[in-house]
Amino acid sequence: MIDSPSVCQDSVSDDERPLTAAELEAKLRAIGAERYHNLHPFHRLLHGGQLNRDQVRAWALNRYCYQAMIPIKDASLIARADDRTLRRAWLQRIIDHDGEREGEGGIERWLRLTDGLGLPRPYVISMRGALPATRFAVEAYVRFVRERPLLEAVASSLTELFSPSIISERVAGMLSGYDFISSDTLSYFEKRLSQAPRDADFALNYVKRNAVTRAHQQAVIDALSFKCDVLWAQLDALYFSYVEPGFVPPGAWKPGAEAI
Amino acid sequence: MIDSPSVCQDSVSDDERPLTAAELEAKLRAIGAERYHNLHPFHRLLHGGQLNRDQVRAWALNRYCYQAMIPIKDASLIARADDRTLRRAWLQRIIDHDGEREGEGGIERWLRLTDGLGLPRPYVISMRGALPATRFAVEAYVRFVRERPLLEAVASSLTELFSPSIISERVAGMLSGYDFISSDTLSYFEKRLSQAPRDADFALNYVKRNAVTRAHQQAVIDALSFKCDVLWAQLDALYFSYVEPGFVPPGAWKPGAEAI
Repeated sequence: MIDSPSVCQDSVSDDERPLTAAELEAKLRAIGAERYHNLHPFHRLLHGGQLNRDQVRAWALNRYCYQAMIPIKDASLIARADDRTLRRAWLQRIIDHDGEREGEGGIERWLRLTDGLGLPRPYVISMRGALPATRFAVEAYVRFVRERPLLEAVASSLTELFSPSIISERVAGMLSGYDFISSDTLSYFEKRLSQAPRDADFALNYVKRNAVTRAHQQAVIDALSFKCDVLWAQLDALYFSYVEPGFVPPGAWKPGAEAI
Repeated sequence: MIDSPSVCQDSVSDDERPLTAAELEAKLRAIGAERYHNLHPFHRLLHGGQLNRDQVRAWALNRYCYQAMIPIKDASLIARADDRTLRRAWLQRIIDHDGEREGEGGIERWLRLTDGLGLPRPYVISMRGALPATRFAVEAYVRFVRERPLLEAVASSLTELFSPSIISERVAGMLSGYDFISSDTLSYFEKRLSQAPRDADFALNYVKRNAVTRAHQQAVIDALSFKCDVLWAQLDALYFSYVEPGFVPPGAWKPGAEAI
């Protein structure tokens, strides 16, 4: 991480009265209500059935970069945790994404979505058609988890507090809005409906228990805010290149491109 | 760096015939001709006098994040170089940006530009109004220089091969196009007209001398391409938020905002 984000935040000292656990949770939920990417215009179009097939392909192709880095991000967190309970609980996230055997797991299910959209797997996995902005945002997230204090790394996962509502909306909206999308291709999200709340509950309890000073609590709030930026920036880039004004950067996937 | 970019590139083996130094230079210049950010629509508007004052402010505010990290990026490179000649030559870049004393140097000159645009220095320096996409792109650049092989780190600076032309165009265009811009506020660029070619010549000679296999040469080409992505992505984000469609992400500077 560039060290500047620390100066970006409201400064609070350890002397200020710590928030109660309930107050901290309320502040975290308020971040989600303001900054979670369900509010982004690209998602409103996606869920409302207002994108064409190429725009949905661009979303799935780019979002693969994020999916692919989740287990690496989670392993980086486990590698830094000296608390066996935390490591044990966090391990399930890797299993969920990588699967216990070939053909299973969240990344495989994401590739079923890109399969269903007619994107060749080697092209998707190479990430060479992804927008640079996608790669930069995902990389910033992985770096954050590797380098910031463990408490902040855990807190950056808390966007999952808000994901069940976006997933329900997405699955319903996409199934009704697009004839090129089936419930099979959306199987990734069905699994996340049960996985995300379990993960989010654990992480929320962890930060409530471990963020004991006001400064630590502010760091937790800032970490969640940063993670919202990571998700939001990916949709900004998709909207810019594939909706309006529709400028695709050199080298990135172009709608209708023959040679993938 | 996320490790994926390596799979994104054309693969070449060490067995392929190495390019001559002249062929390598030609390939590097071709990258610039296709991907350098002088081709970006935001720059065409900026240089053509077609932006309003707030849009120019957004550019200067965001670009500060890039300027501020240059000496840190360059020190990271020097810290990895076991070649005294390289370290000695590269040191000048830090001096150019930080100055030899208070009130000098490229960062100070950039702040004169933001001063002239009425942006308070503490706000600019805090970077808290910058677009997250700007921070992610700049961070990706610093990380690249810190973590990729030294040859690629040097090669990523080669966008300076193309900067004199963009700077001349920018200074002329901005002076004639904007009554809120003076030659004093553009003093940053005047200095770069002499500094950039000196730096670029050194780096170009370095990569021509040190990239001896075809695989190393491809890595140099890819590094320059990556750096073009870093610059391009920053303009994508500016265009998206401040030109069209004009969606500013939560927390970033908004045109006309009173409370900076």
